[in-house]
Amino acid sequence: MAKIRLFTPGPTPVPEQVMLEMAQPMDHHRTSQYQEILGKVLEGLKYVFQTKNDVLVFTSSGTGSMEGAIVCTAQPGKKTLIVQGGKFGERWGEVCAAFDIPHTIMNVEWGKGADVGLIEKALKDDPTIGAVVVVHCETSTAAASNIEAIAKVVSQTPAVLIVDAISSAAAMPIKVDEWGIDIVCTGSQKALMLPPGLAFSVVSEKAWKIIEANKPKAYYFDYRAYRKAIKGVDTPYTSALTLVKGLNKSLEMIRAEGIENVWSRVSKLAGACRSAFEAMGIKLYATDPADSVTAFWVPEGIDEVAFRKTMRARYGVHLAAGQGKIKGKVVRINHMGYVDMVDTMGALAAIETVLLQMGYKFTPGAGLAAAQKVLCQ
Amino acid sequence: MAKIRLFTPGPTPVPEQVMLEMAQPMDHHRTSQYQEILGKVLEGLKYVFQTKNDVLVFTSSGTGSMEGAIVCTAQPGKKTLIVQGGKFGERWGEVCAAFDIPHTIMNVEWGKGADVGLIEKALKDDPTIGAVVVVHCETSTAAASNIEAIAKVVSQTPAVLIVDAISSAAAMPIKVDEWGIDIVCTGSQKALMLPPGLAFSVVSEKAWKIIEANKPKAYYFDYRAYRKAIKGVDTPYTSALTLVKGLNKSLEMIRAEGIENVWSRVSKLAGACRSAFEAMGIKLYATDPADSVTAFWVPEGIDEVAFRKTMRARYGVHLAAGQGKIKGKVVRINHMGYVDMVDTMGALAAIETVLLQMGYKFTPGAGLAAAQKVLCQ
Repeated sequence: MAKIRLFTPGPTPVPEQVMLEMAQPMDHHRTSQYQEILGKVLEGLKYVFQTKNDVLVFTSSGTGSMEGAIVCTAQPGKKTLIVQGGKFGERWGEVCAAFDIPHTIMNVEWGKGADVGLIEKALKDDPTIGAVVVVHCETSTAAASNIEAIAKVVSQTPAVLIVDAISSAAAMPIKVDEWGIDIVCTGSQKALMLPPGLAFSVVSEKAWKIIEANKPKAYYFDYRAYRKAIKGVDTPYTSALTLVKGLNKSLEMIRAEGIENVWSRVSKLAGACRSAFEAMGIKLYATDPADSVTAFWVPEGIDEVAFRKTMRARYGVHLAAGQGKIKGKVVRINHMGYVDMVDTMGALAAIETVLLQMGYKFTPGAGLAAAQKVLCQ
Repeated sequence: MAKIRLFTPGPTPVPEQVMLEMAQPMDHHRTSQYQEILGKVLEGLKYVFQTKNDVLVFTSSGTGSMEGAIVCTAQPGKKTLIVQGGKFGERWGEVCAAFDIPHTIMNVEWGKGADVGLIEKALKDDPTIGAVVVVHCETSTAAASNIEAIAKVVSQTPAVLIVDAISSAAAMPIKVDEWGIDIVCTGSQKALMLPPGLAFSVVSEKAWKIIEANKPKAYYFDYRAYRKAIKGVDTPYTSALTLVKGLNKSLEMIRAEGIENVWSRVSKLAGACRSAFEAMGIKLYATDPADSVTAFWVPEGIDEVAFRKTMRARYGVHLAAGQGKIKGKVVRINHMGYVDMVDTMGALAAIETVLLQMGYKFTPGAGLAAAQKVLCQ
């Protein structure tokens, strides 16, 4: 018996009912039937993001929607501030470089969230900053930034705030309208419980004013074309239709659970895992930990590759390796999407078992008991 | 009973076995299991394109892979020649405009293929032409260009030939290596029998020399990143995994049928439909007709919208409307992908029935008999 149990922070497990929805006979996208589905999907995404702003749907990975956000908001004579403390923050700096967009890098220590005071100071010191790019949950380090506080600062300036919420949307609280976020981007294969292939952006009126006045070096990711199309409940280029159909189903599931309940489920699972690792004497990597995913240091003497291989071979539990400079030192476990208490406690039991067998010393059950305490609170 | 029968030139019907393959439990993309699938898919695509060149896989619509081809091959001091005779040719001119790429438009009468002599002359007259963009099957007009002849001309110059084969790959003969095509792009939702969401490019060494020496305004569609990744049988950004899995299945089906047999099946279905329409006194739109799709003039006195609506409502047969300036005047029927003789004859019977009921005069069965003659040859 070989069950695959994805505990990677994307792709995440896809509910069976979503898979079967996507296996329904193929239909065309220029039909009222499809328009109805896309319309529901847009409403569902607005609910997830707690917003009345436009939602755009791209057929691409999350990187594509972020590229579009950065390129479309880059105004002549202005620069973009990139806050980076991990692999994905670095990626947005690379996008600026590829498109010759003047930009400043604000480095954050890996494992920490962005420093709100430093962002405020940067905006004060340099009025040519036209856009601020922050990663909400930096998937590579499992660290979170305080988007609510950052939005409060940025919204008082002419600059727009672009949030990479690829591994936080529908997992950690994001209130676009209440907090005043200008652009939020995410992908389908994280907390939205879908396979990869779709990306989404939520765009404020403040951002549209800048985008509409621009002539961006963009075609496929030109936000203006998507805005025009969305007014007729359409996309400018053929969408990944089966994924949109599946999304309609997964958004129904999120609505039935209630977005606040989703957020607290993810938060509780993350808290349980953090307690479990501490009780096992395992250190967490992030000092400002996100709830979507937890990164932990592999205990000394344990081979990281062998540990993950055994977890997958023996229990089907697929954990993620570290990325960039923490590769081989850190392992990550996912809490977002179609994952619940039973899944997580099972995975923790497997982690305990494998570590014990590999010679790491701790009281068997210590991690599970600590997790259980959090879950029963 | 409501069966959907897609006769639109993309999306096309997806085989049940491909749908079910995609509904299998979600796995991660950084596994040897997935690498094996991606490796097979790359080999399968090389077979479809009859090439040993690199194949790149993008999560996007076909438009994305074409944008990448145009942007990555645009060399400083050179210009791009866009041959356009329909909506998609026009799109590639728009891409040049969006990225400020110097370009020349060569207009082709709608319904005709590109004029090989004019392309040869243009290249002779203007040695600054660094790339030539031609649409193989212009989906909007159902006209085909002679890519073999164009490749013969372009390959004798320093310019690269970029072919939009979005609605011709795996439907009409394309022999990349034998003909010497530099870049060919296609999408998943046409003759490859998949839902939309993936795009592919085949890139020659001649094109790579230009691309590697460039610093394109591109990130998500930067061909260089995909080449680097493909060497390790990987993609730079998370792929639409379920579609890649489905593609593995549909490529197996193409291989089992044999690519030459696929081409002749499509050609035969197209020939049968062209004969049927002629026998019914219905004029074809394209004077250089493609085999992937046939466009026909709606007979005088017949309401185009009502005709297509009735076809769908009564028989589930979904035909495509005309695009751009021929919208409302022309209807298109698809021949590529998971469509065979039985499907096509059934659809023709439905077309006859609906036209007769709408008052168009012709001998019932005339179209079907003419089609049958072609099919029995």
